[in-house]
Amino acid sequence: SDPYLAPLAVVQTPSHSVTSLANHRTLATDQELFTTSLHSPGSPLFLPNGAHIFNKLLSFLRAQHQQYGFQEVITPTIYKRSLWEISGHWANYKNDMFEVRGRGASGQVEGAEIGEEAEYGLKPMNCPGHCLLFKSQKRAYRELPIRYADFSPLHRNEISGTLSGLTRVRRFHQDDGHIFCRPSQILEEISLTLDFVSMVYKTFKLPPFKLVLSTRPKDNYIGTIEEWDVAEQALKGALERSGRRWDINEGDGAFYGPKIDIVLKDSDGKEHQTATIQLDFQLPQRFGLQYHAPAPELERRGIHTNDPELLRESGEVSPVIIHRAVLGSLERFMAILIEHCNGRWPFWISPRQAVVLTVNGSDSVRGYAKTVQSCLSGLIVSRDEVDGIRSPQFINQQTFLVDLDDSNRSLGKKISEAKRKKYNMVVIVGQKNVQSCTVHLDLTGQPDRDRAKSLLSKAARRIVIEDLKS
Amino acid sequence: SDPYLAPLAVVQTPSHSVTSLANHRTLATDQELFTTSLHSPGSPLFLPNGAHIFNKLLSFLRAQHQQYGFQEVITPTIYKRSLWEISGHWANYKNDMFEVRGRGASGQVEGAEIGEEAEYGLKPMNCPGHCLLFKSQKRAYRELPIRYADFSPLHRNEISGTLSGLTRVRRFHQDDGHIFCRPSQILEEISLTLDFVSMVYKTFKLPPFKLVLSTRPKDNYIGTIEEWDVAEQALKGALERSGRRWDINEGDGAFYGPKIDIVLKDSDGKEHQTATIQLDFQLPQRFGLQYHAPAPELERRGIHTNDPELLRESGEVSPVIIHRAVLGSLERFMAILIEHCNGRWPFWISPRQAVVLTVNGSDSVRGYAKTVQSCLSGLIVSRDEVDGIRSPQFINQQTFLVDLDDSNRSLGKKISEAKRKKYNMVVIVGQKNVQSCTVHLDLTGQPDRDRAKSLLSKAARRIVIEDLKS
Ligand SMILES: [Zn+2]
Ligand SMILES: [Zn+2]
Repeated sequence: SDPYLAPLAVVQTPSHSVTSLANHRTLATDQELFTTSLHSPGSPLFLPNGAHIFNKLLSFLRAQHQQYGFQEVITPTIYKRSLWEISGHWANYKNDMFEVRGRGASGQVEGAEIGEEAEYGLKPMNCPGHCLLFKSQKRAYRELPIRYADFSPLHRNEISGTLSGLTRVRRFHQDDGHIFCRPSQILEEISLTLDFVSMVYKTFKLPPFKLVLSTRPKDNYIGTIEEWDVAEQALKGALERSGRRWDINEGDGAFYGPKIDIVLKDSDGKEHQTATIQLDFQLPQRFGLQYHAPAPELERRGIHTNDPELLRESGEVSPVIIHRAVLGSLERFMAILIEHCNGRWPFWISPRQAVVLTVNGSDSVRGYAKTVQSCLSGLIVSRDEVDGIRSPQFINQQTFLVDLDDSNRSLGKKISEAKRKKYNMVVIVGQKNVQSCTVHLDLTGQPDRDRAKSLLSKAARRIVIEDLKS
Repeated sequence: SDPYLAPLAVVQTPSHSVTSLANHRTLATDQELFTTSLHSPGSPLFLPNGAHIFNKLLSFLRAQHQQYGFQEVITPTIYKRSLWEISGHWANYKNDMFEVRGRGASGQVEGAEIGEEAEYGLKPMNCPGHCLLFKSQKRAYRELPIRYADFSPLHRNEISGTLSGLTRVRRFHQDDGHIFCRPSQILEEISLTLDFVSMVYKTFKLPPFKLVLSTRPKDNYIGTIEEWDVAEQALKGALERSGRRWDINEGDGAFYGPKIDIVLKDSDGKEHQTATIQLDFQLPQRFGLQYHAPAPELERRGIHTNDPELLRESGEVSPVIIHRAVLGSLERFMAILIEHCNGRWPFWISPRQAVVLTVNGSDSVRGYAKTVQSCLSGLIVSRDEVDGIRSPQFINQQTFLVDLDDSNRSLGKKISEAKRKKYNMVVIVGQKNVQSCTVHLDLTGQPDRDRAKSLLSKAARRIVIEDLKS
């Protein structure tokens, strides 16, 4: 493969596993997760249930970003050709990019302003934007590592015939991160990243993954052999420290740096490359990124010194960039999760956490069922006594998605629909419950029952929750 | 003004207040909120502090969406010309839109696939995508109102000479919402929306706003006079119910529906149009949106009946769409907030919540200062005893942004820098604090001191917080 295209594969295109994940579309239709449109092929439209899961993934990652020292940034969707020329995309990646023009540009509008002729590219990745952010301020060695995270929508012009569900798309999002660090910090950063990956895959109870290190190619590489040795030693050190098995692909690294691939084997034995950790000596050079450090000669080689003579001198050094994505494409990760859970979502991420069913259609039961729904949702709707305006909900208030089925159908039918829809909890309310202020709870659809019951009980406040004897 | 362009002004372009908000750029530079780049004029790049405020605004809105019954969706960035022809944008708005093409499309690549020639438009608003979502499933009257919220980035091709900071941009985000409702639900939905607006503006302690109703134009309108009367009565009813003063602009509505504008007067007396509530009879027709209802003739006129004879008949009815944005452009709202707070952010949204300063540079003080920083941040970093992997942070864990200044400068210098940077809380740690496990707290920069102190004390756990006697 063309080594020059490899930087763009930092986050791999989701081409490897179309067959094994075909089934995610059926499950997604059942659960009303997303739809597609001929008006925008390859750009899934997330329905509320799908957007809920997507946003829960983001919230989860944001909470982890805090403990791993990532700072979220928000960067443009389109950049002028001038940026893609610096990054090298215009020359090497143009057929995979969408081109953008102001409508006044191509002679369609008379008297279009000068400068409106600019060609733009719709971004296929976030790295160039993060380089602009790094470069927007003077940087000193004390500030490093700087770790940027970004969830921007990205576009790649995949051939229309291959588009499918969430796995083969033109518009997608990554849990994209770029670490700008000193050469001496590579080991620690890779180590932290591997810890991050392990934590996430363990949280989702995904099968064990394989680590593969790709090293310096025999010919055609940039940087000195010493720089490569420092980097590869750091990567090996981090792999050893992780305590996991890892393999090596000698000479298979990109010309601009070594990398570690994380390969997941699903229950069908199919392999999915999800996370990637890619070192990059090149992009900092292309963008002229620098930080100020004492003893710059040693700094470049990843060596710290206490020698006052050497420390007296200071100068500019290029940071190393580590591209990393833990989930990879969020869309693709969702497809993996859909299949992995077989539509039965862990409670915290589920778009169908609970449903309240009425035993009969009497007014008192229906009224009480509405109260139960509102209690269990965790929302506290109140109004200011003076001006009558609603009070704002707190940002950190824990809330639940609770639906209500108070239709006149038989309880049996309502239960079987609730089970087909894979609600984590089925809450049943009859005449006796109205008097005793209780509900019956069916947790058959819930993996971790004790935790779920305790969460719900907390939300329920005055309402007593009884397990269903069934 | 061309009535046909009005639907696109549902969310107004941020052109009204360039002069009054010029100063937000200076404050934003001080606080490191965003930067701009010649590679993408009019697309601000949010630095971590700016992204933090932006994301807090989103979290706040998401929490409120739950209580107001909005469901978030995620929709494409680009749509083919075919969609913009249905919506009317291609004919009437094309010069304000960016045009998108696959790079293989314009003959640059030989053998480009058929169908790759498609022209796309970069979306300037979310309504057409929400219509596709509504249409993706069969809808019945019981399901309405359906309320979609969307925070997608939007693009409008503003002339380059006028671009400025966060107020005059090409790329922006809205807290965009579309309510698909029955004619009989208009009053209730408008009323809820006005309550939402009041709640939000009160939360941010913004000055009182003015409400202006624009009614049916004399000529050139779609729909029947009866439909307009039903809608205008509903809007007037909601305005009355709000208990606020409102004005009327007779005949100033768009040809496709009446609207309510929310106009904010800032401390300089300048008016900002922020929120808008726009009724729309047209878009549902263009997209052929329908829902199934009994007694369709009465349903269309917003009348409920119990007559079994009339209820026996059922049929398809067009929903009404209400376009609404509460903050309007998030970028522009941020600019208003920056000026309104004069850089002194409420604690919950502040990117500089607290800083820990060391009195001296001794190892014990610096070590303790680090402990204090980590404690106050609210992060609980722990590892699994068996596999050594970090535990995930909980999504609902309340955390704080706490910086550390343990440099060797004098305390006076560090304090004055902290005040210049407008930290809400300045936490001071000296030798005595190490032994007593305490800190000194300076809340001069904090508007609501008791609440802030109680929040921080909760996070601090073992550490005792003493007010600074200064
Ligand atoms: Zn990258
Ligand atoms: Zn709209």
